[in-house]
Amino acid sequence: MPEDRLTPVTVIGLGSMGTALAEAFIKAGHRTTVWNRTTTKAAPLVAMGAEHAASVEDAVAASPLVIACLTTYDDTREALEPATAALGGRALVTLNSGSPAGARQMAAWAVGYGARFLDGAIKNVPSAVGAPDTLLYYGGDRTVFDEFESTLKVLGGDTVHLGDDADLAALYEMAVGGTLLPALVGFFQGAAAVQARGLAASTLVPFTAKWLEMINSVLPIFAQEIDSGDYSKPMSSVNLFVAGITYDEELGQEANIDVAWQAPLHELLRRAVAAGHGEHSISALVEVLKQPERMA
Amino acid sequence: MPEDRLTPVTVIGLGSMGTALAEAFIKAGHRTTVWNRTTTKAAPLVAMGAEHAASVEDAVAASPLVIACLTTYDDTREALEPATAALGGRALVTLNSGSPAGARQMAAWAVGYGARFLDGAIKNVPSAVGAPDTLLYYGGDRTVFDEFESTLKVLGGDTVHLGDDADLAALYEMAVGGTLLPALVGFFQGAAAVQARGLAASTLVPFTAKWLEMINSVLPIFAQEIDSGDYSKPMSSVNLFVAGITYDEELGQEANIDVAWQAPLHELLRRAVAAGHGEHSISALVEVLKQPERMA
Repeated sequence: MPEDRLTPVTVIGLGSMGTALAEAFIKAGHRTTVWNRTTTKAAPLVAMGAEHAASVEDAVAASPLVIACLTTYDDTREALEPATAALGGRALVTLNSGSPAGARQMAAWAVGYGARFLDGAIKNVPSAVGAPDTLLYYGGDRTVFDEFESTLKVLGGDTVHLGDDADLAALYEMAVGGTLLPALVGFFQGAAAVQARGLAASTLVPFTAKWLEMINSVLPIFAQEIDSGDYSKPMSSVNLFVAGITYDEELGQEANIDVAWQAPLHELLRRAVAAGHGEHSISALVEVLKQPERMA
Repeated sequence: MPEDRLTPVTVIGLGSMGTALAEAFIKAGHRTTVWNRTTTKAAPLVAMGAEHAASVEDAVAASPLVIACLTTYDDTREALEPATAALGGRALVTLNSGSPAGARQMAAWAVGYGARFLDGAIKNVPSAVGAPDTLLYYGGDRTVFDEFESTLKVLGGDTVHLGDDADLAALYEMAVGGTLLPALVGFFQGAAAVQARGLAASTLVPFTAKWLEMINSVLPIFAQEIDSGDYSKPMSSVNLFVAGITYDEELGQEANIDVAWQAPLHELLRRAVAAGHGEHSISALVEVLKQPERMA
Protein backbone atom coordinates (compact mmCIF):
# COMPACT_ATOMS: atom_id res chain seq x y z
CA MET A 1 0.00 0.00 0.00
CA PRO A 2 1.33 3.47 -0.84
CA GLU A 3 2.18 5.49 2.25
CA ASP A 4 0.32 8.78 2.43
CA ARG A 5 3.28 10.74 3.79
CA LEU A 6 5.35 9.93 0.67
CA THR A 7 5.18 12.20 -2.36
CA PRO A 8 2.96 10.84 -5.16
CA VAL A 9 4.97 10.53 -8.36
CA THR A 10 4.07 10.30 -12.03
CA VAL A 11 6.36 8.56 -14.50
CA ILE A 12 5.82 9.27 -18.18
CA GLY A 13 7.58 7.06 -20.70
CA LEU A 14 7.90 3.37 -19.88
CA GLY A 15 10.91 2.17 -21.82
CA SER A 16 13.39 0.01 -19.93
CA MET A 17 14.64 2.99 -17.92
CA GLY A 18 11.23 4.55 -17.27
CA THR A 19 9.92 1.16 -16.14
CA ALA A 20 12.87 0.81 -13.74
CA LEU A 21 12.14 4.27 -12.32
CA ALA A 22 8.45 3.47 -11.79
CA GLU A 23 9.30 0.13 -10.16
CA ALA A 24 11.67 1.85 -7.74
CA PHE A 25 8.96 4.31 -6.66
CA ILE A 26 6.35 1.56 -6.28
CA LYS A 27 8.72 -0.56 -4.19
CA ALA A 28 9.56 2.45 -2.01
CA GLY A 29 5.85 2.88 -1.27
CA HIS A 30 5.12 5.99 -3.33
CA ARG A 31 1.71 6.35 -4.96
CA THR A 32 2.95 5.98 -8.55
CA THR A 33 1.02 7.00 -11.64
CA VAL A 34 2.31 5.86 -15.01
CA TRP A 35 1.58 6.75 -18.60
CA ASN A 36 2.96 5.52 -21.87
CA ARG A 37 1.87 6.03 -25.45
CA THR A 38 1.77 2.25 -25.89
CA THR A 39 -0.49 1.27 -23.01
CA THR A 40 0.61 -2.40 -22.83
CA LYS A 41 3.88 -1.24 -21.22
CA ALA A 42 1.92 -0.13 -18.15
CA ALA A 43 0.32 -3.52 -17.33
CA PRO A 44 3.22 -5.08 -15.34
CA LEU A 45 3.54 -1.87 -13.30
CA VAL A 46 -0.19 -1.80 -12.59
CA ALA A 47 0.14 -5.39 -11.38
CA MET A 48 2.78 -4.10 -8.95
CA GLY A 49 0.46 -1.38 -7.68
CA ALA A 50 0.85 1.56 -10.06
CA GLU A 51 -2.09 3.68 -11.21
CA HIS A 52 -2.46 3.83 -14.97
CA ALA A 53 -3.65 7.27 -16.07
CA ALA A 54 -6.19 7.33 -18.86
CA SER A 55 -4.50 10.31 -20.51
CA VAL A 56 -1.21 12.12 -20.27
CA GLU A 57 -3.11 15.10 -18.84
CA ASP A 58 -4.51 12.90 -16.05
CA ALA A 59 -1.02 11.55 -15.46
CA VAL A 60 0.44 15.05 -15.03
CA ALA A 61 -2.47 16.13 -12.83
CA ALA A 62 -2.09 13.10 -10.56
CA SER A 63 1.17 14.06 -8.82
CA PRO A 64 3.13 17.15 -7.74
CA LEU A 65 6.27 15.50 -9.13
CA VAL A 66 6.25 14.40 -12.78
CA ILE A 67 9.20 12.51 -14.19
CA ALA A 68 9.47 12.20 -17.96
CA CYS A 69 11.80 9.51 -19.29
CA LEU A 70 11.51 9.60 -23.06
CA THR A 71 14.25 9.42 -25.69
CA THR A 72 14.69 13.10 -26.53
CA TYR A 73 13.47 16.53 -25.44
CA ASP A 74 11.44 16.71 -28.65
CA ASP A 75 9.74 13.43 -27.77
CA THR A 76 9.05 14.77 -24.29
CA ARG A 77 7.39 17.97 -25.52
CA GLU A 78 5.38 16.03 -28.05
CA ALA A 79 4.14 13.60 -25.38
CA LEU A 80 3.31 16.41 -22.93
CA GLU A 81 1.64 18.67 -25.51
CA PRO A 82 -1.91 17.50 -24.60
CA ALA A 83 -1.11 18.04 -20.90
CA THR A 84 0.17 21.62 -20.92
CA ALA A 85 -2.92 22.89 -19.09
CA ALA A 86 -2.04 20.58 -16.18
CA LEU A 87 1.63 21.61 -15.96
CA GLY A 88 1.07 24.79 -13.92
CA GLY A 89 2.55 24.37 -10.45
CA ARG A 90 3.95 20.89 -11.17
CA ALA A 91 7.58 19.97 -10.77
CA LEU A 92 8.68 18.47 -14.08
CA VAL A 93 11.85 16.42 -14.16
CA THR A 94 13.26 15.18 -17.48
CA LEU A 95 15.64 12.23 -17.63
CA ASN A 96 16.75 11.77 -21.22
CA SER A 97 19.83 12.32 -23.31
CA GLY A 98 20.28 15.56 -25.21
CA SER A 99 22.37 18.65 -25.65
CA PRO A 100 22.64 21.60 -23.27
CA ALA A 101 20.82 23.70 -25.88
CA GLY A 102 18.04 21.12 -25.96
CA ALA A 103 17.78 21.21 -22.16
CA ARG A 104 17.53 25.03 -22.17
CA GLN A 105 14.79 24.89 -24.80
CA MET A 106 12.95 22.24 -22.78
CA ALA A 107 13.23 24.35 -19.62
CA ALA A 108 11.86 27.45 -21.35
CA TRP A 109 8.95 25.42 -22.68
CA ALA A 110 8.10 23.95 -19.26
CA VAL A 111 8.48 27.23 -17.37
CA GLY A 112 6.32 28.89 -20.03
CA TYR A 113 3.48 26.61 -18.95
CA GLY A 114 4.04 27.40 -15.29
CA ALA A 115 6.00 24.27 -14.36
CA ARG A 116 9.11 24.24 -12.20
CA PHE A 117 11.82 22.38 -14.08
CA LEU A 118 14.75 20.11 -13.36
CA ASP A 119 16.74 18.12 -15.92
CA GLY A 120 18.79 15.14 -14.87
CA ALA A 121 20.81 12.15 -16.01
CA ILE A 122 21.09 8.62 -14.70
CA LYS A 123 24.72 7.51 -14.83
CA ASN A 124 23.95 3.82 -14.89
CA VAL A 125 21.91 1.01 -16.40
CA PRO A 126 18.22 0.36 -15.60
CA SER A 127 19.07 -2.60 -13.33
CA ALA A 128 21.10 -0.25 -11.10
CA VAL A 129 18.18 2.13 -10.47
CA GLY A 130 17.55 2.33 -6.73
CA ALA A 131 21.00 1.17 -5.64
CA PRO A 132 22.75 3.19 -2.91
CA ASP A 133 25.74 4.13 -5.09
CA THR A 134 23.83 4.79 -8.32
CA LEU A 135 24.61 8.31 -9.50
CA LEU A 136 22.04 10.77 -10.80
CA TYR A 137 22.79 14.43 -11.28
CA TYR A 138 20.42 17.31 -11.92
CA GLY A 139 20.55 20.89 -13.11
CA GLY A 140 17.78 23.45 -12.77
CA ASP A 141 15.39 24.80 -10.18
CA ARG A 142 17.01 24.27 -6.79
CA THR A 143 13.67 24.49 -4.98
CA VAL A 144 12.45 21.41 -6.88
CA PHE A 145 15.56 19.49 -5.89
CA ASP A 146 15.34 20.54 -2.24
CA GLU A 147 11.62 19.81 -1.99
CA PHE A 148 11.82 16.38 -3.63
CA GLU A 149 15.36 15.31 -2.79
CA SER A 150 14.33 12.32 -0.65
CA THR A 151 11.95 11.17 -3.39
CA LEU A 152 14.59 11.57 -6.11
CA LYS A 153 17.02 9.56 -3.96
CA VAL A 154 14.70 6.57 -4.34
CA LEU A 155 16.25 6.30 -7.84
CA GLY A 156 19.85 6.25 -6.60
CA GLY A 157 21.64 7.08 -3.36
CA ASP A 158 24.25 9.26 -5.06
CA THR A 159 21.96 12.10 -6.12
CA VAL A 160 23.55 15.50 -6.79
CA HIS A 161 22.32 19.00 -7.72
CA LEU A 162 24.89 20.56 -10.04
CA GLY A 163 23.51 24.09 -10.11
CA ASP A 164 20.54 26.25 -11.07
CA ASP A 165 21.09 26.17 -14.82
CA ALA A 166 18.72 23.71 -16.46
CA ASP A 167 21.36 22.57 -18.94
CA LEU A 168 24.03 21.49 -16.45
CA ALA A 169 23.14 17.80 -16.41
CA ALA A 170 23.32 17.72 -20.23
CA LEU A 171 26.63 19.60 -20.09
CA TYR A 172 28.11 17.17 -17.56
CA GLU A 173 26.77 14.24 -19.58
CA MET A 174 28.84 15.38 -22.53
CA ALA A 175 31.81 16.31 -20.36
CA VAL A 176 31.86 12.94 -18.58
CA GLY A 177 30.86 10.85 -21.58
CA GLY A 178 33.70 12.18 -23.73
CA THR A 179 36.07 9.62 -22.22
CA LEU A 180 34.03 6.60 -23.29
CA LEU A 181 34.67 6.13 -26.99
CA PRO A 182 38.38 7.08 -26.87
CA ALA A 183 39.03 4.82 -23.88
CA LEU A 184 37.20 1.94 -25.56
CA VAL A 185 39.01 2.38 -28.86
CA GLY A 186 42.28 2.37 -26.89
CA PHE A 187 41.24 -0.93 -25.37
CA PHE A 188 40.06 -2.36 -28.70
CA GLN A 189 43.37 -1.42 -30.30
CA GLY A 190 45.18 -3.28 -27.54
CA ALA A 191 42.89 -6.25 -28.01
CA ALA A 192 43.69 -6.30 -31.72
CA ALA A 193 47.41 -6.14 -30.91
CA VAL A 194 47.39 -9.13 -28.57
CA GLN A 195 45.10 -11.07 -30.92
CA ALA A 196 47.60 -10.46 -33.71
CA ARG A 197 50.01 -12.51 -31.57
CA GLY A 198 47.52 -15.30 -31.07
CA LEU A 199 46.64 -14.24 -27.53
CA ALA A 200 43.13 -13.73 -26.20
CA ALA A 201 41.73 -10.22 -25.75
CA SER A 202 40.57 -11.36 -22.32
CA THR A 203 44.21 -11.55 -21.18
CA LEU A 204 44.31 -7.78 -21.47
CA VAL A 205 41.30 -7.10 -19.24
CA PRO A 206 42.89 -7.31 -15.75
CA PHE A 207 45.81 -5.16 -16.87
CA THR A 208 43.61 -2.53 -18.49
CA ALA A 209 41.37 -2.55 -15.41
CA LYS A 210 44.34 -1.75 -13.16
CA TRP A 211 45.46 0.88 -15.63
CA LEU A 212 42.08 2.64 -15.63
CA GLU A 213 42.12 2.54 -11.81
CA MET A 214 45.54 4.19 -11.95
CA ILE A 215 44.13 6.86 -14.28
CA ASN A 216 41.26 7.39 -11.85
CA SER A 217 43.71 7.88 -9.00
CA VAL A 218 45.49 10.75 -10.76
CA LEU A 219 42.42 12.68 -12.00
CA PRO A 220 42.14 14.74 -8.78
CA ILE A 221 45.73 15.92 -9.25
CA PHE A 222 45.11 16.88 -12.87
CA ALA A 223 41.87 18.66 -11.91
CA GLN A 224 43.72 20.67 -9.29
CA GLU A 225 46.35 21.69 -11.86
CA ILE A 226 43.61 22.71 -14.29
CA ASP A 227 41.67 24.68 -11.67
CA SER A 228 44.79 26.48 -10.43
CA GLY A 229 46.25 26.95 -13.90
CA ASP A 230 49.61 25.87 -12.46
CA TYR A 231 51.08 23.13 -14.65
CA SER A 232 54.66 23.65 -13.52
CA LYS A 233 55.07 20.63 -11.19
CA PRO A 234 54.30 17.76 -13.54
CA MET A 235 53.79 14.19 -12.43
CA SER A 236 53.89 13.36 -16.16
CA SER A 237 55.04 16.02 -18.60
CA VAL A 238 53.80 16.70 -22.12
CA ASN A 239 57.31 15.82 -23.34
CA LEU A 240 57.01 12.40 -21.71
CA PHE A 241 53.89 11.75 -23.76
CA VAL A 242 55.59 13.09 -26.89
CA ALA A 243 58.33 10.51 -26.32
CA GLY A 244 55.63 7.84 -26.24
CA ILE A 245 54.34 8.68 -29.72
CA THR A 246 56.82 6.30 -31.32
CA TYR A 247 55.37 3.41 -29.30
CA ASP A 248 51.92 4.10 -30.67
CA GLU A 249 53.34 3.99 -34.17
CA GLU A 250 55.35 0.83 -33.50
CA LEU A 251 52.25 -0.89 -32.18
CA GLY A 252 50.54 -0.30 -35.49
CA GLN A 253 53.46 -1.79 -37.40
CA GLU A 254 53.92 -4.73 -35.00
CA ALA A 255 50.35 -5.85 -35.19
CA ASN A 256 49.25 -4.39 -38.55
CA ILE A 257 46.46 -2.43 -36.96
CA ASP A 258 45.10 1.01 -37.65
CA VAL A 259 46.52 3.54 -35.20
CA ALA A 260 45.76 6.55 -37.41
CA TRP A 261 42.96 7.60 -35.05
CA GLN A 262 45.68 8.69 -32.63
CA ALA A 263 47.24 11.19 -35.04
CA PRO A 264 45.22 14.21 -33.80
CA LEU A 265 46.07 13.28 -30.20
CA HIS A 266 49.73 13.45 -31.13
CA GLU A 267 49.05 16.73 -32.89
CA LEU A 268 47.56 18.11 -29.65
CA LEU A 269 50.78 17.13 -27.86
CA ARG A 270 52.85 18.92 -30.48
CA ARG A 271 50.67 22.02 -30.26
CA ALA A 272 51.13 21.98 -26.48
CA VAL A 273 54.90 21.82 -26.90
CA ALA A 274 54.76 24.67 -29.44
CA ALA A 275 52.77 26.70 -26.89
CA GLY A 276 55.55 26.23 -24.34
CA HIS A 277 53.98 23.41 -22.34
CA GLY A 278 56.63 20.74 -23.06
CA GLU A 279 57.88 20.53 -19.47
CA HIS A 280 54.44 21.24 -18.04
CA SER A 281 51.98 18.64 -16.81
CA ILE A 282 50.03 16.71 -19.45
CA SER A 283 46.95 18.41 -17.98
CA ALA A 284 48.11 21.58 -19.78
CA LEU A 285 46.46 20.03 -22.85
CA VAL A 286 43.32 21.69 -21.50
CA GLU A 287 44.78 25.03 -22.56
CA VAL A 288 45.29 23.74 -26.10
CA LEU A 289 41.75 22.32 -26.26
CA LYS A 290 40.40 25.71 -25.19
CA GLN A 291 41.93 27.31 -28.25
CA PRO A 292 40.47 25.66 -31.31
CA GLU A 293 42.64 26.00 -34.37
CA ARG A 294 40.96 28.28 -36.85
CA MET A 295 40.33 26.99 -40.32
CA ALA A 296 43.05 28.18 -42.67
CA MET B 1 71.40 -9.12 7.74
CA PRO B 2 70.73 -10.81 4.40
CA GLU B 3 69.32 -14.28 4.79
CA ASP B 4 71.44 -16.96 3.13
CA ARG B 5 68.49 -18.93 1.84
CA LEU B 6 67.24 -15.93 -0.20
CA THR B 7 68.48 -15.42 -3.75
CA PRO B 8 71.19 -12.75 -4.04
CA VAL B 9 70.10 -10.04 -6.46
CA THR B 10 71.92 -7.40 -8.47
CA VAL B 11 70.19 -4.17 -9.49
CA ILE B 12 71.79 -2.14 -12.26
CA GLY B 13 70.53 1.39 -12.83
CA LEU B 14 69.57 3.42 -9.78
CA GLY B 15 67.08 5.96 -11.04
CA SER B 16 63.95 6.43 -8.96
CA MET B 17 62.55 3.06 -10.08
CA GLY B 18 65.82 1.12 -9.81
CA THR B 19 66.36 2.55 -6.33
CA ALA B 20 62.86 1.46 -5.32
CA LEU B 21 63.57 -2.07 -6.61
CA ALA B 22 66.86 -2.29 -4.69
CA GLU B 23 65.21 -0.99 -1.51
CA ALA B 24 62.50 -3.64 -1.78
CA PHE B 25 65.09 -6.44 -2.07
CA ILE B 26 67.15 -5.06 0.82
CA LYS B 27 64.07 -4.78 3.05
CA ALA B 28 63.04 -8.32 2.13
CA GLY B 29 66.43 -9.56 3.33
CA HIS B 30 68.06 -10.38 -0.01
CA ARG B 31 71.79 -9.86 -0.40
CA THR B 32 71.54 -6.94 -2.85
CA THR B 33 74.36 -5.71 -5.06
CA VAL B 34 73.88 -2.39 -6.82
CA TRP B 35 75.67 -0.56 -9.60
CA ASN B 36 75.08 2.76 -11.26
CA ARG B 37 77.18 4.80 -13.65
CA THR B 38 76.93 7.74 -11.25
CA THR B 39 78.18 6.14 -8.06
CA THR B 40 76.65 8.68 -5.65
CA LYS B 41 73.25 7.13 -6.32
CA ALA B 42 74.41 3.97 -4.54
CA ALA B 43 75.31 5.59 -1.20
CA PRO B 44 71.82 5.61 0.43
CA LEU B 45 71.33 1.96 -0.59
CA VAL B 46 74.72 0.99 0.83
CA ALA B 47 73.65 2.69 4.07
CA MET B 48 70.60 0.37 4.03
CA GLY B 49 72.79 -2.69 3.58
CA ALA B 50 73.44 -3.03 -0.15
CA GLU B 51 76.80 -4.04 -1.59
CA HIS B 52 78.20 -1.54 -4.05
CA ALA B 53 80.03 -3.30 -6.87
CA ALA B 54 83.26 -1.67 -8.04
CA SER B 55 82.43 -2.40 -11.67
CA VAL B 56 79.42 -3.47 -13.70
CA GLU B 57 81.21 -6.79 -14.33
CA ASP B 58 81.55 -7.36 -10.56
CA ALA B 59 77.87 -6.43 -10.21
CA VAL B 60 76.77 -9.01 -12.78
CA ALA B 61 79.08 -11.65 -11.31
CA ALA B 62 77.75 -11.07 -7.79
CA SER B 63 74.27 -12.62 -8.22
CA PRO B 64 72.48 -15.31 -10.22
CA LEU B 65 69.65 -12.82 -10.83
CA VAL B 66 70.53 -9.49 -12.42
CA ILE B 67 67.86 -6.83 -12.84
CA ALA B 68 68.59 -3.93 -15.18
CA CYS B 69 66.41 -0.87 -14.79
CA LEU B 70 67.71 1.70 -17.24
CA THR B 71 65.79 3.99 -19.57
CA THR B 72 66.01 2.06 -22.85
CA TYR B 73 67.31 -1.24 -24.22
CA ASP B 74 70.15 0.67 -25.89
CA ASP B 75 71.13 2.16 -22.53
CA THR B 76 71.02 -1.31 -21.02
CA ARG B 77 73.30 -2.88 -23.62
CA GLU B 78 75.69 0.05 -23.36
CA ALA B 79 75.87 -0.28 -19.55
CA LEU B 80 76.34 -4.06 -19.71
CA GLU B 81 78.90 -4.04 -22.52
CA PRO B 82 81.92 -4.26 -20.12
CA ALA B 83 80.20 -7.15 -18.31
CA THR B 84 79.40 -9.49 -21.20
CA ALA B 85 82.00 -12.02 -20.04
CA ALA B 86 80.12 -12.36 -16.74
CA LEU B 87 76.66 -12.80 -18.33
CA GLY B 88 77.01 -16.54 -19.07
CA GLY B 89 74.60 -18.52 -16.91
CA ARG B 90 73.08 -15.44 -15.31
CA ALA B 91 69.36 -14.66 -15.40
CA LEU B 92 69.05 -11.16 -16.83
CA VAL B 93 65.77 -9.29 -16.30
CA THR B 94 65.20 -5.94 -17.98
CA LEU B 95 62.60 -3.50 -16.66
CA ASN B 96 62.49 -0.53 -18.99
CA SER B 97 60.18 0.90 -21.59
CA GLY B 98 60.62 0.04 -25.22
CA SER B 99 59.09 -1.57 -28.25
CA PRO B 100 58.55 -5.29 -28.86
CA ALA B 101 61.23 -5.12 -31.56
CA GLY B 102 63.61 -3.57 -29.02
CA ALA B 103 62.85 -6.35 -26.54
CA ARG B 104 63.53 -9.03 -29.15
CA GLN B 105 66.86 -7.40 -30.05
CA MET B 106 67.75 -7.19 -26.35
CA ALA B 107 66.89 -10.85 -25.83
CA ALA B 108 69.03 -11.96 -28.78
CA TRP B 109 71.95 -9.94 -27.42
CA ALA B 110 71.63 -11.40 -23.91
CA VAL B 111 71.16 -14.98 -25.09
CA GLY B 112 74.16 -14.50 -27.41
CA TYR B 113 76.30 -14.00 -24.31
CA GLY B 114 74.86 -17.08 -22.61
CA ALA B 115 72.36 -15.31 -20.33
CA ARG B 116 68.81 -16.47 -19.76
CA PHE B 117 66.51 -13.53 -20.43
CA LEU B 118 63.24 -12.12 -19.15
CA ASP B 119 61.79 -8.71 -19.98
CA GLY B 120 59.19 -7.13 -17.75
CA ALA B 121 57.24 -4.01 -16.95
CA ILE B 122 56.19 -2.42 -13.68
CA LYS B 123 52.64 -1.13 -13.99
CA ASN B 124 52.94 1.38 -11.21
CA VAL B 125 54.96 4.21 -9.65
CA PRO B 126 58.19 3.68 -7.66
CA SER B 127 56.44 4.24 -4.32
CA ALA B 128 54.16 1.26 -5.08
CA VAL B 129 57.05 -1.19 -5.56
CA GLY B 130 56.68 -4.02 -3.06
CA ALA B 131 52.95 -3.60 -2.45
CA PRO B 132 50.79 -6.74 -2.57
CA ASP B 133 48.64 -5.53 -5.47
CA THR B 134 51.39 -3.94 -7.55
CA LEU B 135 51.39 -5.49 -11.01
CA LEU B 136 54.49 -6.57 -12.91
CA TYR B 137 54.34 -8.72 -16.00
CA TYR B 138 57.09 -10.56 -17.78
CA GLY B 139 57.71 -12.19 -21.11
CA GLY B 140 60.56 -14.55 -21.93
CA ASP B 141 62.33 -17.58 -20.54
CA ARG B 142 59.80 -19.42 -18.39
CA THR B 143 62.55 -21.23 -16.43
CA VAL B 144 63.85 -17.88 -15.20
CA PHE B 145 60.39 -16.88 -14.04
CA ASP B 146 59.74 -20.20 -12.33
CA GLU B 147 63.14 -20.29 -10.63
CA PHE B 148 62.99 -16.72 -9.34
CA GLU B 149 59.24 -16.14 -9.00
CA SER B 150 59.30 -15.67 -5.22
CA THR B 151 62.17 -13.20 -5.55
CA LEU B 152 60.43 -11.28 -8.34
CA LYS B 153 57.29 -11.09 -6.18
CA VAL B 154 59.24 -8.99 -3.69
CA LEU B 155 58.68 -6.18 -6.22
CA GLY B 156 54.91 -6.60 -6.36
CA GLY B 157 52.44 -9.26 -5.31
CA ASP B 158 50.65 -9.31 -8.66
CA THR B 159 53.46 -10.81 -10.75
CA VAL B 160 52.52 -12.53 -14.00
CA HIS B 161 54.36 -14.48 -16.73
CA LEU B 162 52.72 -13.64 -20.06
CA GLY B 163 54.46 -16.23 -22.21
CA ASP B 164 57.81 -17.38 -23.55
CA ASP B 165 58.30 -14.64 -26.11
CA ALA B 166 60.70 -12.02 -24.81
CA ASP B 167 58.70 -9.17 -26.35
CA LEU B 168 55.37 -9.86 -24.69
CA ALA B 169 55.77 -7.41 -21.82
CA ALA B 170 56.62 -4.66 -24.32
CA LEU B 171 53.64 -5.67 -26.46
CA TYR B 172 51.26 -5.59 -23.47
CA GLU B 173 52.75 -2.28 -22.37
CA MET B 174 51.71 -0.77 -25.67
CA ALA B 175 48.38 -2.60 -25.70
CA VAL B 176 47.47 -1.48 -22.19
CA GLY B 177 48.99 1.99 -22.41
CA GLY B 178 46.99 2.88 -25.51
CA THR B 179 44.03 3.88 -23.36
CA LEU B 180 45.93 6.52 -21.38
CA LEU B 181 46.26 9.52 -23.67
CA PRO B 182 42.78 9.21 -25.25
CA ALA B 183 41.09 8.76 -21.87
CA LEU B 184 42.97 11.74 -20.45
CA VAL B 185 42.18 13.96 -23.42
CA GLY B 186 38.52 12.96 -23.00
CA PHE B 187 38.73 14.08 -19.38
CA PHE B 188 40.59 17.29 -20.25
CA GLN B 189 37.96 18.14 -22.86
CA GLY B 190 35.27 17.70 -20.22
CA ALA B 191 37.26 19.86 -17.82
CA ALA B 192 37.50 22.60 -20.45
CA ALA B 193 33.74 22.34 -21.02
CA VAL B 194 32.78 22.79 -17.38
CA GLN B 195 35.39 25.54 -16.95
CA ALA B 196 33.83 27.38 -19.89
CA ARG B 197 30.73 27.59 -17.67
CA GLY B 198 32.66 28.91 -14.70
CA LEU B 199 32.65 25.56 -12.90
CA ALA B 200 35.69 23.85 -11.42
CA ALA B 201 37.30 20.91 -13.23
CA SER B 202 37.37 19.16 -9.86
CA THR B 203 33.55 18.92 -9.95
CA LEU B 204 33.98 16.49 -12.84
CA VAL B 205 36.32 14.09 -11.03
CA PRO B 206 33.84 11.97 -9.03
CA PHE B 207 31.59 11.58 -12.07
CA THR B 208 34.44 10.63 -14.40
CA ALA B 209 35.74 8.22 -11.75
CA LYS B 210 32.38 6.42 -11.64
CA TRP B 211 32.28 6.44 -15.42
CA LEU B 212 35.72 4.81 -15.74
CA GLU B 213 34.64 2.22 -13.18
CA MET B 214 31.60 1.54 -15.34
CA ILE B 215 33.88 1.15 -18.39
CA ASN B 216 36.04 -1.26 -16.38
CA SER B 217 32.99 -3.33 -15.51
CA VAL B 218 32.08 -3.90 -19.16
CA LEU B 219 35.56 -4.73 -20.51
CA PRO B 220 35.21 -8.48 -19.77
CA ILE B 221 32.05 -8.56 -21.88
CA PHE B 222 33.72 -6.76 -24.78
CA ALA B 223 36.76 -9.04 -24.52
CA GLN B 224 34.51 -12.08 -24.71
CA GLU B 225 32.81 -10.70 -27.81
CA ILE B 226 36.19 -10.01 -29.40
CA ASP B 227 37.56 -13.45 -28.54
CA SER B 228 34.46 -15.23 -29.84
CA GLY B 229 34.03 -12.95 -32.84
CA ASP B 230 30.33 -12.83 -32.02
CA TYR B 231 29.20 -9.20 -31.92
CA SER B 232 25.53 -9.95 -32.51
CA LYS B 233 24.17 -9.44 -28.97
CA PRO B 234 25.20 -5.86 -28.29
CA MET B 235 24.98 -4.19 -24.91
CA SER B 236 25.78 -0.97 -26.81
CA SER B 237 25.64 -0.99 -30.58
CA VAL B 238 27.84 0.87 -33.04
CA ASN B 239 24.73 2.74 -34.17
CA LEU B 240 24.17 3.96 -30.61
CA PHE B 241 27.63 5.50 -30.66
CA VAL B 242 27.00 6.96 -34.12
CA ALA B 243 23.92 8.68 -32.67
CA GLY B 244 26.18 10.19 -30.01
CA ILE B 245 28.45 11.90 -32.54
CA THR B 246 26.24 14.99 -32.60
CA TYR B 247 26.75 15.44 -28.84
CA ASP B 248 30.51 15.51 -29.28
CA GLU B 249 30.09 18.20 -31.89
CA GLU B 250 27.62 20.20 -29.79
CA LEU B 251 30.04 20.12 -26.85
CA GLY B 252 32.63 21.85 -29.00
CA GLN B 253 30.19 24.57 -29.99
CA GLU B 254 28.78 25.00 -26.47
CA ALA B 255 32.11 25.50 -24.83
CA ASN B 256 34.23 26.71 -27.77
CA ILE B 257 36.69 23.89 -27.36
CA ASP B 258 38.56 21.81 -29.86
CA VAL B 259 36.83 18.47 -30.43
CA ALA B 260 38.49 17.84 -33.79
CA TRP B 261 40.65 15.10 -32.22
CA GLN B 262 37.51 12.95 -32.13
CA ALA B 263 36.96 13.08 -35.90
CA PRO B 264 38.89 9.86 -36.67
CA LEU B 265 37.01 8.06 -33.87
CA HIS B 266 33.78 9.03 -35.58
CA GLU B 267 35.28 7.88 -38.88
CA LEU B 268 35.99 4.47 -37.32
CA LEU B 269 32.32 4.27 -36.31
CA ARG B 270 31.24 5.09 -39.85
CA ARG B 271 33.62 2.51 -41.30
CA ALA B 272 32.16 -0.05 -38.90
CA VAL B 273 28.65 0.77 -40.10
CA ALA B 274 29.79 0.54 -43.72
CA ALA B 275 31.25 -2.90 -42.95
CA GLY B 276 27.85 -4.06 -41.69
CA HIS B 277 28.49 -3.66 -37.95
CA GLY B 278 25.85 -0.98 -37.26
CA GLU B 279 23.67 -3.21 -35.10
CA HIS B 280 26.66 -5.10 -33.72
CA SER B 281 28.38 -4.43 -30.43
CA ILE B 282 30.73 -1.45 -30.28
CA SER B 283 33.48 -4.02 -29.70
CA ALA B 284 33.22 -4.84 -33.42
CA LEU B 285 35.43 -1.77 -33.91
CA VAL B 286 38.28 -4.26 -33.34
CA GLU B 287 37.55 -5.68 -36.78
CA VAL B 288 37.86 -2.23 -38.34
CA LEU B 289 41.12 -1.51 -36.49
CA LYS B 290 42.52 -4.79 -37.81
CA GLN B 291 42.05 -3.61 -41.37
CA PRO B 292 44.06 -0.44 -41.84
CA GLU B 293 42.80 1.72 -44.64
CA ARG B 294 45.28 1.72 -47.47
CA MET B 295 46.53 5.04 -48.66
CA ALA B 296 44.68 6.14 -51.77
